[in-house]
This record gives sequence, C-alpha cells and structure tokens, in this order.
Amino acid sequence: MSSKSRFASRPVKKVVLAYSGGLDTSVLLVWLRETYGCEIVTFTADLGQGEDLQAVHDKAVRAGVAKDHIFIEDLRESFVTDYVFPMFRANAVYEGCYLMGTAIARPITALRQIEIARQVGADALCHGCTGKGNDQYRFELAYAALAPELRGLAPWREWDLNSRESLLAYAQAHQVAIDANQDDKPPYSMDANVLHTSYEGGILEDPWAAAPDEIFTRSVNPADAPNTPQDLVLTFAAGDAVALDGKNMSPAQVLAALNDIAGRHGVGRLDIVENRRSGMKSRGVYETPGGTVLLAAHRAIESITLDIQAAHLKDEIMPRYAQIIYDGLWFSPEREALQALIDSTQQQVNGEVRLRLYKGQVTVTGRRSPDSLYQEAYATFGADDVFDQQDSSGSIRIAGLRLRLAAERKAKR
Amino acid sequence: MSSKSRFASRPVKKVVLAYSGGLDTSVLLVWLRETYGCEIVTFTADLGQGEDLQAVHDKAVRAGVAKDHIFIEDLRESFVTDYVFPMFRANAVYEGCYLMGTAIARPITALRQIEIARQVGADALCHGCTGKGNDQYRFELAYAALAPELRGLAPWREWDLNSRESLLAYAQAHQVAIDANQDDKPPYSMDANVLHTSYEGGILEDPWAAAPDEIFTRSVNPADAPNTPQDLVLTFAAGDAVALDGKNMSPAQVLAALNDIAGRHGVGRLDIVENRRSGMKSRGVYETPGGTVLLAAHRAIESITLDIQAAHLKDEIMPRYAQIIYDGLWFSPEREALQALIDSTQQQVNGEVRLRLYKGQVTVTGRRSPDSLYQEAYATFGADDVFDQQDSSGSIRIAGLRLRLAAERKAKR
Amino acid sequence: MSSKSRFASRPVKKVVLAYSGGLDTSVLLVWLRETYGCEIVTFTADLGQGEDLQAVHDKAVRAGVAKDHIFIEDLRESFVTDYVFPMFRANAVYEGCYLMGTAIARPITALRQIEIARQVGADALCHGCTGKGNDQYRFELAYAALAPELRGLAPWREWDLNSRESLLAYAQAHQVAIDANQDDKPPYSMDANVLHTSYEGGILEDPWAAAPDEIFTRSVNPADAPNTPQDLVLTFAAGDAVALDGKNMSPAQVLAALNDIAGRHGVGRLDIVENRRSGMKSRGVYETPGGTVLLAAHRAIESITLDIQAAHLKDEIMPRYAQIIYDGLWFSPEREALQALIDSTQQQVNGEVRLRLYKGQVTVTGRRSPDSLYQEAYATFGADDVFDQQDSSGSIRIAGLRLRLAAERKAKR
Amino acid sequence: MSSKSRFASRPVKKVVLAYSGGLDTSVLLVWLRETYGCEIVTFTADLGQGEDLQAVHDKAVRAGVAKDHIFIEDLRESFVTDYVFPMFRANAVYEGCYLMGTAIARPITALRQIEIARQVGADALCHGCTGKGNDQYRFELAYAALAPELRGLAPWREWDLNSRESLLAYAQAHQVAIDANQDDKPPYSMDANVLHTSYEGGILEDPWAAAPDEIFTRSVNPADAPNTPQDLVLTFAAGDAVALDGKNMSPAQVLAALNDIAGRHGVGRLDIVENRRSGMKSRGVYETPGGTVLLAAHRAIESITLDIQAAHLKDEIMPRYAQIIYDGLWFSPEREALQALIDSTQQQVNGEVRLRLYKGQVTVTGRRSPDSLYQEAYATFGADDVFDQQDSSGSIRIAGLRLRLAAERKAKR
Repeated sequence: MSSKSRFASRPVKKVVLAYSGGLDTSVLLVWLRETYGCEIVTFTADLGQGEDLQAVHDKAVRAGVAKDHIFIEDLRESFVTDYVFPMFRANAVYEGCYLMGTAIARPITALRQIEIARQVGADALCHGCTGKGNDQYRFELAYAALAPELRGLAPWREWDLNSRESLLAYAQAHQVAIDANQDDKPPYSMDANVLHTSYEGGILEDPWAAAPDEIFTRSVNPADAPNTPQDLVLTFAAGDAVALDGKNMSPAQVLAALNDIAGRHGVGRLDIVENRRSGMKSRGVYETPGGTVLLAAHRAIESITLDIQAAHLKDEIMPRYAQIIYDGLWFSPEREALQALIDSTQQQVNGEVRLRLYKGQVTVTGRRSPDSLYQEAYATFGADDVFDQQDSSGSIRIAGLRLRLAAERKAKR
Repeated sequence: MSSKSRFASRPVKKVVLAYSGGLDTSVLLVWLRETYGCEIVTFTADLGQGEDLQAVHDKAVRAGVAKDHIFIEDLRESFVTDYVFPMFRANAVYEGCYLMGTAIARPITALRQIEIARQVGADALCHGCTGKGNDQYRFELAYAALAPELRGLAPWREWDLNSRESLLAYAQAHQVAIDANQDDKPPYSMDANVLHTSYEGGILEDPWAAAPDEIFTRSVNPADAPNTPQDLVLTFAAGDAVALDGKNMSPAQVLAALNDIAGRHGVGRLDIVENRRSGMKSRGVYETPGGTVLLAAHRAIESITLDIQAAHLKDEIMPRYAQIIYDGLWFSPEREALQALIDSTQQQVNGEVRLRLYKGQVTVTGRRSPDSLYQEAYATFGADDVFDQQDSSGSIRIAGLRLRLAAERKAKR
Repeated sequence: MSSKSRFASRPVKKVVLAYSGGLDTSVLLVWLRETYGCEIVTFTADLGQGEDLQAVHDKAVRAGVAKDHIFIEDLRESFVTDYVFPMFRANAVYEGCYLMGTAIARPITALRQIEIARQVGADALCHGCTGKGNDQYRFELAYAALAPELRGLAPWREWDLNSRESLLAYAQAHQVAIDANQDDKPPYSMDANVLHTSYEGGILEDPWAAAPDEIFTRSVNPADAPNTPQDLVLTFAAGDAVALDGKNMSPAQVLAALNDIAGRHGVGRLDIVENRRSGMKSRGVYETPGGTVLLAAHRAIESITLDIQAAHLKDEIMPRYAQIIYDGLWFSPEREALQALIDSTQQQVNGEVRLRLYKGQVTVTGRRSPDSLYQEAYATFGADDVFDQQDSSGSIRIAGLRLRLAAERKAKR
Repeated sequence: MSSKSRFASRPVKKVVLAYSGGLDTSVLLVWLRETYGCEIVTFTADLGQGEDLQAVHDKAVRAGVAKDHIFIEDLRESFVTDYVFPMFRANAVYEGCYLMGTAIARPITALRQIEIARQVGADALCHGCTGKGNDQYRFELAYAALAPELRGLAPWREWDLNSRESLLAYAQAHQVAIDANQDDKPPYSMDANVLHTSYEGGILEDPWAAAPDEIFTRSVNPADAPNTPQDLVLTFAAGDAVALDGKNMSPAQVLAALNDIAGRHGVGRLDIVENRRSGMKSRGVYETPGGTVLLAAHRAIESITLDIQAAHLKDEIMPRYAQIIYDGLWFSPEREALQALIDSTQQQVNGEVRLRLYKGQVTVTGRRSPDSLYQEAYATFGADDVFDQQDSSGSIRIAGLRLRLAAERKAKR
C-alpha cells in the first residue's frame, strides 16, 4: 500500500479547502474530489492580496462548488489588528531582516478555515502548500493547536503532481479552467497580503544573481522614486499606529496608507537568504513598504517612552519570538507567554514619530510623546541641577569591584 | 572637607592623561598639575579620527609636557583587527540600531594608556569624560579590569568647571592655548574614529527637531549622492572582511575604503534616542558609512554559510553582547565568554557579497561561497530528488503532538 | 563640608522608619532625631519573623515615639499571596540554589512604608541596612520606583557608627534601651520571615568552616529528624498551593504548615557563597523549610500540566527573573513583564503532588491532575495506537538535514 | 509497497550494529540478516554499564557474527573526560532536575560506531531504539552530523515486532538465544553507564504511583543508609574534578569512586515526569549517585572562583545547552559554540569543596581555593577599610534613576 493510497484509504466526508483560485488550488479541488469523493467547501481570505475575489468566486462555481460552500471573507482589519500589530509591538524580524509577511498571514486563515469547518460540519481541512516550505508547518500546526479532531490534508506531499508540467497536464485532463495567461505566469512564486509580497523560487534560486527589477509589484525602483523626500508623522497609542499625518485610521487603513506612500518612494525591498524551518536555506525577495516604515517608527517611539530594561528584555527575547511565528507556532503557549510579556510593556508607548522617505530609504527625523522618558535636563552635557555626577563615581566603583578583585587575583598568581 | 579636596588630598606622582589636544583635555592637563603638582604624561591614540596629530604634539609641548612624556601612537590596525572586527562578527547593534563606534574605541585607548603608565612608572590614569555619559564607565571599568593598582582620575566629576563658560575662563586664567576658532566650535559634541563620527548634545538635545544637515562630516546628504548606484564586492574569510572588489586589504584599509565609498553615497547616517548606561535617555546622531556596509555584508555572508541554529543562537545573545560593550565591559569575563561563542561559529564564514550603494541605502544583491550551505537542489519548489516530502509530514506531526494533546485537554474541560 | 553634614544639611520634617525594635533600628531612631530634629514614625511589618510585636511597640513608646506614630501591621497574607507565590510560579532560585527569602520580603515593607508616609504626611523614608549589602538596593529602588518625591535616608552609609562597639557606645550615651541579652546576641546576623531565616556574617565569614549546627532555628538537624518518613500531598490551583493533605488553606497558612512539617524533618537548610549585587561574594546560610518543599512540588505539578515549550521558556528566563528580584527590582517594568509571561502559563497548573520528607530530604513520589498532559497511551514503550512511529523518521530526517548539509560541506573541503 | 518493503528494497552490504547483547539487539541482528542479507558487525561500548562483556561477545559469536566483526571497547575514560565532564562544567540539568545520564552516553557510542564502520567498510549503521523515545534522535542526529554518507537503520520504526510478545516469538522462531531469565526481566526498561541508571516504562508509567524501592540498583534506600554522615573533599582543576579526599584520580575513576560512596548513602535518586523530544511526557526514574555529588560540588567551587556575570551568563544559557544535549545535538554547531563559552569560564575554577553525605542528601559544608574571589575583608558587615559605603549611594541612585523618571511620568499623567 503506497503512501498515497494509505492516505486516500481513510474516507473524507467534507473538506474545507484554503482556496486561492490559482492553478494549484484549482487542481487541488479536483484532486480532492477525485481522490476522496468528498464534498468540497472553499475558503478564500481577503488579506489584501489584491486579487479579484469575484473571479475567484466564479472559478469555484465553475469548478462545481455549491454556492453556499464558497466562503470569501474580508479579514483585513482582523489580520492587521490581531496579528500584524501584535507582532510589530515586538519589533519582530526573522534573522535580522525579514518582517515575516507570509508567516503572520497563515494563522488567521487557518483559524477561520477551522471555524467554517465547524460551521459546515466538515471533517477535514486542506491547504495547498508544498512539502518543502514553511507554510505547511504554519497551517498544520494551527490545525493541531485549534482543531485536533479535524483531519489535515496536504496533497502536495501526497500526490504525484510534483512539477509544473504534470500539474498542467492534470488540469487539462480534468478540464480545470486555466487562466489564459497561465503560460505568462512569472518564473517564480509569489505570495501577497496587505503586509507584504514575497517572491521566491525559479529564477531567484541563484543567490548570487541579483533579483531582476521587473519582479517587484508594490514599490518603484528607488532610482525611479521622486527626487523630493516625503516627510510623514505616525501617531502611536499603546504601541500601535493609530494616525497618519494627524488623521485617525484603523489598523488596516494605516498600513494600506503607509504601503502607498512607501511604495511610491521605493521603500521596503529586501533580498535575503533565509533558513527555512526544515533546515534548508532559501532565497527570498520581499516587498514590505508600509511595514518597513512601521518598524522604524515603532522602534523610535519606544526609544523615548520605553524603560531601558524593558527595551533590552524585549530585544533579547525578540529573535525567539520571531522564530516562533516563522515556524508556524502563533497558536502556542510560548507565543502567548511572550506576547503577554511584550504587551505588558506597551501601555506608555504613545506619541508621534516623524519619518522621511527618499529613494528607498526611511529615516527617523523626530519623536515626541506626552509619555516621554527623555529629559533634556538629564541628557545635557551642559550644567544641570538634577543629576549629581558624584553618583557616577560610586556607580562605576561598584560596577568595577568584581573586575578589580579578579585582576588582583590574576596579579597574585 | 569637600569632595574635591578629599579627591586631591591623596597625592599623585605621575599621571597618564588620555589627551586629545582639544580645549577639555588641555584644561585637564593644567588642572591636574595645579591640583596634584604631579608629572603629566599625555597619550593620544590615532584611531583614525582625522585630527592633526603634529598639532596635538605641539600643543602638549607648549603646555609644558616633556617630549619624552608625549605619546602619540597610530593604533588603527589594532583597533580594527582586535576590536571592531570581533564586534562585527557578532552583528552587534545596541538597541536595534547603533553600531557602537564610540564604545568600541575606548578599550584600546585605556589598554594602551595603562601599558604606558607601567612603562613610565605612573601611579595614575586620567580621562576627560563627563560624569553623565557612558565613556567614564568604559575608561574606568577598563582600568579596574586591567590595572586596579593604578588610580583612575575623572576630573569632570570632581572640579567646578561644569560649564563651557567656566572652562574657557579657567583656560584664559591659566593661559591654556585655545584654538583661534574655539568660538566657532559647533554647538554640539563630536567624537570620531575610523568606524564612526558621533554628534550629541547642544542643538541636538530636542529629539523632535531633525538633525541639521550641516553637522555631518563623513557622508553626503543622500539627495546629493550620485544618481548612479555603485556596486561593490566584499570578500570574507573567517567572518572578517579581507578584500574589496577583489583587492586584498588589511582590516583598517578595508574599513577606510568602505568609508570613502559609502560616504560618497550618503550611506550610514543614523539619528536615535538611546539609553545611556546611567539610565537617562540621550539623543545621538551617528555616521558610520563603512560599518553600515560591513554589517549588511557580514549578515549576508553568514546567511549562506552559517548553520541555522548557530545563527539563531548568535541573534539571541547579540543584544546582551552589545550591551556589554556599550556599558564599557569589553575587558570582562562575560564579553570574553560570548566572544568565544561567537568566534567558534566563524570558521566557515567565507565568501563574497555583492552590495549596491545608492542615495543613502545599501542593498545586498548577491552572495556566494565555497562554504555555502545553500543548495538549490533542496531549496527549489521544482521537482527534486534529494528531499523526501514525506519527511515533512512526520516532522509536522511530531512538532504538533504537544499542541494536539493540549487542545484535547482543553476540549475535555 | 563632610558627607555627613552635607547629608544632614537638607532638613527632614517627618520620617517613616522601617523599625524592627532591635539595637540597630533603635539607635537609628535616636540618631534621626538628633541629626534632623524631625518627627519619627515607626513602621514594623509582621511578615512572620516570629518576634514579640508588643515588645516592639513598647520599645518605640519608650523611645518617645507618639502612639499614633507607631505602625505595626500583620502583612503575612499579602506577603505570601502577592510576593512569595508569584515568585514561586517562576521556580525562581538565585544562582542555582537560593530561594531569596530576604529579597522577596523587602518590596512589601517598602511599599507599606511609603503608603504610611503619604498617610501621615512624611517627607522621608529611612531603612537600617548597611552600605555593603543587598537590602539597601531593595529598599531604595522600591522608594525610587514608587515614591521619587520622598527622600530616602540610609544612615548606615552616613554615620560613623560602623562597628558594633561604637553602636553600643552610642546607645548607652543616648540611653537607648538595650535588651538585657544584647551581649548574648549571636556572633552573626539573622533575618527572618515566614519564608526563611538567613544567617550571615561573623563566624560564618570563613567559607571553608562548616556552619555550626547551633545557629539553626527552624529545622532540626537531619540526624535528629524522625526515623520515619512523612508523606504529604499538596494541591495546586493556577500554580499556587491551595491545600495541604486535602485541607484548604490560605497562602500564608499553607506556607506556615509546610514550615512546621519540613522543619521537623530537617528539610530546607542551605549553605552557599553568593554574589551580592555590589559584586562581592558573601557566605549565606539559610533555612527555608516550607519553601523548599513548595519549589519541588511546583516543579512536579508543572511537569505534568505545562507545555514543554512554555516550561523551557520559563526555565530560560528564570535566572534573569531571579536576579531582578535579588537586585531589588521587584517594582520594575522588567519584573512586571516577566511576571506577565510567567503568570500566562499557570492557568492549567492544577493538581496534586505527593512528597516524602525524610532526614533533610524532600522527594516527589507522585503527581496527578485533571489537566495533565501526560498520557500513558503516548508514553508507553508497549504497543500503542495513538502514535505513528514513522513520524519520528521524518522528524529526525528534517532535524538532521542541516547537519547533513554541513557534514557534506566539510567532506568536500 | 509497504514501508517495510520500501525500507528493505535499498540493499545494505555491511552494517555496524550498536549491540548490547540483550533480547532486543539480538533479535535485531537476526532481523537485519534476514531482511538485508547483509554482513553484520557488532559494536558494544563499555561505558560502565556493569554488564558481562565476555558474555556479550559469546552471544555475538553464537549468533554467527565473525570474530573480527565483533567490537567491544572500554570507552569509560573518554566518556567521562570528553562528554560527562564538559557537560558538568555547564551545571547542566534538563528541566530543572535531570542530569542526562542517557543523553550524554549516545554521542560517544555513535561516534565510535561510525569510526568502526569506516574501518570495516560498512555502508550502514543500526541502532535498537524505539520510534517513540529520545535515543533515536541522539543516534541518528550524530549519524547525520558525522557520517551523512552512511545509511542509518532504525528497525524499531520499521518492523512489525512492536510488542514484547511478538519479539519473543520472533526470537524463538529464529533460534535467538534468550537468557534463561528473560521471563524474569523487570517490568520496566533500564539503561546504565558510569554516570547513571535509568528506569522507565512498564510499572512506572503511572506518575502518581511511587517508584517501588526494589527497582534501584546503585543506591540504598536513604532509610537504610548509614546513621553516620560521611564527609568528603573533592578537588577541582579548570572546572573538572581531579582528586577525591586528596587522592588524584582520572575522570572515570573519580566518578566511579563518587558512585560508590554516594550510593552507599542513598544519594542521587530522582523521580520525574519529563518532556521527551517528541513532545510527549514520560515518567523517568534515575539513579545518579556520583553525578549528584559532582553537580553540587562544581556549583560550590564556582561560587567562590567564578565572576558573577560569567556565572549568571552560564545560568542563563544552561537550559538551552541542556536541551541541545537532551535532544541529541551534541555534535552540532550550537553545542560547540555554547561549549566554547562555558569552557572559556573554567580556567580559574580550581580548589576544594567539602561535602557531607547523609541519608540520601548531599550538602556542601565548605569551599576554598587559591583562586578564590571571596574576600572576607569585603564581605564582612564589621568595619572595613577596603570598601567605601558611599559608593553604594551613587550606585543605587544611578540604578534607580530610570525608575524615578518613570515614576515622575506616572505622577504627571
């Protein structure tokens, strides 16, 4: 009994498929029906990926999915409010650079997929991630944490359609509607949401070859950006951005607005080799225009409002927190514990940050807050009354005591 | 008995003064002689600050220092080789941003100051740092760790000359040679070496006011940088940069060359509010052109040559390591222990990184290495032979086991 | 102007003194009145130290303190509920061993002292800690965090009474009531509360000399403990002990009851050299009978109810958390942030632990919980249905992938 | 094609089997020959498990293994020198308690197994660990790190002999020599080496049921231990124990001698529920007599010779280091990096520790060292000349500055 048949041998009654409408999940839809003879429910989350969701709906209908089995939902506000912003409170970057725009998008999709499965009485969940990447972990670990009673299907690890050609052949054989421009599909894979767009695979697989400029979709080449810098002011409340240039906005609105401005100035491109969860290295190219601005601004507002030790503690646990999210463990006790730590530090993270965007760069040029801990009276090197410099003498002597004792030991030996 | 007189009441025979030749240390020189009636030895380290060292020499002579008591030494190679590069192996940044160009320069100065003190039979060391900043910790903790038998003098915490006006008055009263252009001195304080130039105090003390463009001395305004990007290739061996565009260079040479190029492209400016060792917040503006390129390049070469877990471990201990250096604890068991950890990971950090400089930005565009752990055969989303996607199933199910058990517990309650 | 007179030169109107009734604070009381001519308010916290509080009251009266200026309060329940138990949720030990019975007692005393100061309109706070130990940090950092507007007085760092003889002379000269048995005072210093008793100084200062058996006051010598072991069962709810042998108890009650039993069995003695906050090493001998049992029991109940990653995260941050408390930073953003992390993991830490006490040792012999994550069906090495051993193959191969790639690199070079 | 046949379908020429001579690996030997028709080489490491190695040899001969294919080697000295002692330098315990006597024994066995495979030209390695435990990770991750070119066989995850009964039936059917007393085998599994003996499974699977006293093999019940305590003195050099009661010994000798003494006093029993690598909880009972003494002694000698910050850093990274070893990653860049950190702190960890063993307990009663950092002159609460208590004032005020600033902010709002 092969893996595949072993897989198929346990019956599935009704499955909720995370459905993008692209070739892959369209083939999945057919394959699931063929393999299991089960009812198919599709779920498409609008996270700001900018696709034509009516077209996705129509495609599902054409693929024979019952209309009341097609779920398409706008989750943008929840995505930014409950996932993106909490992550930014941590200043989270993976491996020093990556803002994790893909990793942070999977938990909400998996969660809603599970809720729909319970609503429609499904017994299985299915995603379209390959068996080599990170996303399979992110979906299936969310399934494990939230719905262990539901079966998780990962056809990419099971079937034989392991190349683009075989996929297309299967699609044709099963009359899967293929976009006219399928053959124009770019020679790399993409993923997008309101936080970022990612590019990997295909022509990007040589890490020495520069990423071609034409792949980018959300930002201009810095060389083509305006010759005049643009200044903007972000307002924070309790660690979250709440207004742009004085105009109050919802989380998704502020991120979208930042995307527009930053993209126009070529801000937010990133080209890295990262370590995947599965231990292989992978080249990824990212565009995160608004997020790049948001990170710089959040660090800046923290710089005047956050206590030094709270700030250093956050910096020390950040890499761990980022790895947890990257690895697909958003719904885990350790992420929740670290989030409790992070959130407990953000109440006073209020105020304004001024930033300048120019030719791909974002620079902080000012920060102020009613909750500022910065006090010119202390910081100044001019004369002051608030600080007794003699205190430093004692502080240094105490700090150096252990070093002197060790040096004396050394001298003695 | 006042602090000052208590201070002075213990005699000093011969003191080695860290001497820059500026107004502050020139006054110090006189004050030391007046207060202690002691012999003065001056030590000036050339760390690439770009000052006229002959002028410093002449000034010391005019101040009455015996010629064989004037030590001026070019420490640039040792500075970059033994301090800057080890620090960059850690990708060290303080509070997410600051490359610590000042903090890393103090240990070598203090060390050499001590060696000279032993050579000339001095019984005291003196620095010219104020009692509110970080540098007093850096000098005096080095003194404590390396020479507890020598007395450390910190006149700024002792005397009454706590404003610019009183300093100038003292200088005039004691005929300290003042540069003609003393009154033209910029309204902020600066510190420079081959790694960076810092600006703080004075007109920079309002963290909402943007740093004026005219303060910068090592980089052009990005708006004035060339309209054409410049690509360069850095070669690394065992974690250190050893060649630029294929030309082998010493550590100090490669950093100086990077400074030139990066400065021309407006790369390396930073404007932050940081937490000083003493708990107050301080606004600092920095120019670190070459170092900014070096950090990006080092991370990039690590990205293909360093094991994931070694890389993550380094990221997790980095904030602690950076704080240790910032706090003046270079010569400490904990810095040495962390350095042993860091250095043990760098043997395979060999290869080349291509970077693009443009209008203030540095971007990595390629990386390659004979020691690369990146393998296209594994990373590809195309068909492959080396990776059994079934392995992922097991890996995910094991990773999710604890989450399923917890979810089942929750469901049961 | 000497330090002392400088100190005294700023007038104090009314001071709240942390008052134990012992020689030291009795002298302090007189010294404060002499030095400042200020009103004195005494505050004595009953934390279970087992002293005669009526005698303390009478002594204050005899020393001339107005009756409505004498505050003696039983804080035992709050002490255990709000300080000891939160600390035990973290399994906190300082330097691998010490349960921090002194460090955890200072914050509540300082807090209540401050509240009383505000109530009576005092402008200063005073403690009786020496200038070499940890407690001065604990009191004064609490003052700084909670009442920066109040002046903190630390006479031990200011006056000249730096030996026992001078203290006694001062006491006699000022007619301070000295206990008849003052001369019988043990040749070391002690501190006690419901969590522990500490012994340090004097004859304990030689770390090679064994602590004499006669110093111990709360536990029998293990050799004198009963020859029959005693079993007990502790019940936990949300990480806190709530019942002993099935009998519900308040936090202070359960700790007191554990103290009784454990003390009878010689459990909880500790003899260490620890690193004080100020960098010197200090020999401390401790008795923490109930706390020693509580720590073992809490770890045991966590062992079956806490997720592995939450548990490991707690273990990794514990040393930092312990140091924060030891260093006197209970009232700090970093302690609060870590507490938020810790507390977020304790909801399911419910159940029972059976322990055996015998001749100084406490051993866990059983643990069970309605929230147990332990599942015999998974753990067994016998045949089982719930676990597919094939999953391990994949898990191991994925875990080893990076190692294989590195080994292949090594082989190639 | 089933997993098993897929497994068998790739031919094996010659395999090195980690062979204990027990039923399991005896059956493995036959099964390997049957399944692969391959040559069998057996390797048995003497790590101090106390088995009759001549009997193991004879059993292999009777099973048809060529004499020059039977490798039995005494690795005790290397085991303690190169694995146990480096681990103890870190004070490593897993999950607060477990001394990892099993985890630390696998790397050396795997390493030597690989060396033999290369020597005899084998193309495969085989271990006898089940698919649910930790040891499979430890063997196979060592194989991955050191010999990716060799195939690792894990028959327990492949075959159908998944119960004791089926194993016995297979053994009988294939005339595997079974010890006469096979049916007397204890109803739990054991593992032993010079560091520890472990017991798990079977009757121990109920974590509420106390471990029966009769399982223990290396220590007396504390109740049966001598009524007179025994004192001993351990001498350390560079962090390792080098002498017992003044008598120099090799690493394996000192551990063996400690085992004898500690076992006689009932020291070193542990009963825990631990988290396995695979996410399930498991009850383990351990006897680590000598190791328990060694850990206490190493902490004690560090307490007087190690710098506070080095000690705290070690404590903070220890849980991570322990997990790495527990998870089977001894041969990994991260273990090596942490070991470099740990080892860099041990040069001055020299001196003597006196310990008392009594009825199951080990207590430190004294420590001294030519490299001691403990200085009575500093630690004393009596009068002293070396420490200026005024320094503490400054130290505290600086430490509290950030707290005062935050409190003032709070008051203002």
